[in-house]
Amino acid sequence: MEKTRYKAIIQYDGTHFSGFQIQPDERTIQGDIEKALKMMSKGHVIKIQGSGRTDAGVHALGQVIHFDYPTTIPPENMKRALNSLTTDEIGFFEVEIVPDTFHARYQTSGKKYEYRVDTGKVADPFKRQYTLHHPYPIHLDLLEHALAQVVGKHDFSGFCASRSGKEDKVRTVYEASVRQDEAHGELIFTFAGDGFLYNMVRILVGTLLQIANGRRDINDIQRIIASEDRNQAGPTASPKGLYLMEVYYQKMQEKTEK
Amino acid sequence: MEKTRYKAIIQYDGTHFSGFQIQPDERTIQGDIEKALKMMSKGHVIKIQGSGRTDAGVHALGQVIHFDYPTTIPPENMKRALNSLTTDEIGFFEVEIVPDTFHARYQTSGKKYEYRVDTGKVADPFKRQYTLHHPYPIHLDLLEHALAQVVGKHDFSGFCASRSGKEDKVRTVYEASVRQDEAHGELIFTFAGDGFLYNMVRILVGTLLQIANGRRDINDIQRIIASEDRNQAGPTASPKGLYLMEVYYQKMQEKTEK
Repeated sequence: MEKTRYKAIIQYDGTHFSGFQIQPDERTIQGDIEKALKMMSKGHVIKIQGSGRTDAGVHALGQVIHFDYPTTIPPENMKRALNSLTTDEIGFFEVEIVPDTFHARYQTSGKKYEYRVDTGKVADPFKRQYTLHHPYPIHLDLLEHALAQVVGKHDFSGFCASRSGKEDKVRTVYEASVRQDEAHGELIFTFAGDGFLYNMVRILVGTLLQIANGRRDINDIQRIIASEDRNQAGPTASPKGLYLMEVYYQKMQEKTEK
Repeated sequence: MEKTRYKAIIQYDGTHFSGFQIQPDERTIQGDIEKALKMMSKGHVIKIQGSGRTDAGVHALGQVIHFDYPTTIPPENMKRALNSLTTDEIGFFEVEIVPDTFHARYQTSGKKYEYRVDTGKVADPFKRQYTLHHPYPIHLDLLEHALAQVVGKHDFSGFCASRSGKEDKVRTVYEASVRQDEAHGELIFTFAGDGFLYNMVRILVGTLLQIANGRRDINDIQRIIASEDRNQAGPTASPKGLYLMEVYYQKMQEKTEK
């Protein structure tokens, strides 16, 4: 049977999900979307493929998925149907028909993440699920010094959750920056690179916040990279501050040359 | 026994509360705070007094309360204790000791509310509990024409939930304005006045959005005020977009003279 491949850019509030990937007896993004597709297609089992997983509590503003639908529906109708058949916690923002050669996971050339920190003395009730509350001193100059050591092609084993496999841990980080949003009392980290290891952004943020505080040496990022030892790094920051912002599918050569 | 009166400015995410006012077998803001005060004071029943109620699902960025505590605790400690003994959904931002003559409700001279509307075509998953999703055309000029008719001293019976009592329905609105936050895809209404009737802001917004859309005459606000008939007005907009922003305790003479 002829199938049509759809690509979608989705956003989700990950608070009440056990992550992206389908799991028995757990509420997941993939599970919810596949349930909607089954309803729409009158019982067909349609698997979706994401650009990668996100953990429980992690949010997405630019996750990319693809799936093969048994018939052809105009993308606008597909978008409307998926938005109405899934929970309000998931939004389908762009839906298009793509060639069968497109693959949401195998063709990624990079990703961008943000990590939001609520730096207010009193935790903002409206940000409790969307930021890490960290009411401690932040020395921006220390942070920027440390962030510069993240950029580049490194073996990031020291910033990878130890339970992950033995595959190659070399990744290239194109951007590692921070900005202060004074109006909203937030500190926002941005990381862009050709790929990220399991928990890598969260361990980086946990370590960077200790450096920003003076509780860790300003050259620790470099030292932890060289050690290839996760025990040298700081804690894994809470998932609730983490956002998958964008998935890249073009070559990012301009950016590697920075 | 000597008691100490405390005033606090609090914020809350009203999503999971049955409103401000204590009710048996319901989770309320007042109920949660009184529970915390009972814990702190080793079993004393301490009633709090708010500037007014907010309905189920309504939020606050500047609600004001007062209560009498059996001993004197430095305000910073009181603030820390209340923040740690109440849910993250409630935040105590300013706590101070006030004279016994201060009363959070009887001495208010006015209030300010905002109402946030998500105007994006697809509902933003992160705003589902914090805005009304309204993906329809908005003609700002029509809105501004209509908002000008809200300002002033009027009998607002036409914009008051019919289940409320027979007391005086005359109120003075000092400010009724709207701004577009293009960066966030939002329309934000602001209403400030010497007092607001039950559901008044929500009925105003429900009516104004119909005017903005061309579905209602641009002079309907004036007509509904004159009619003193709530059935002439539009629907009561969802509580989730409504925020109590500020409670005024000074005379607002400068503003009344506008």
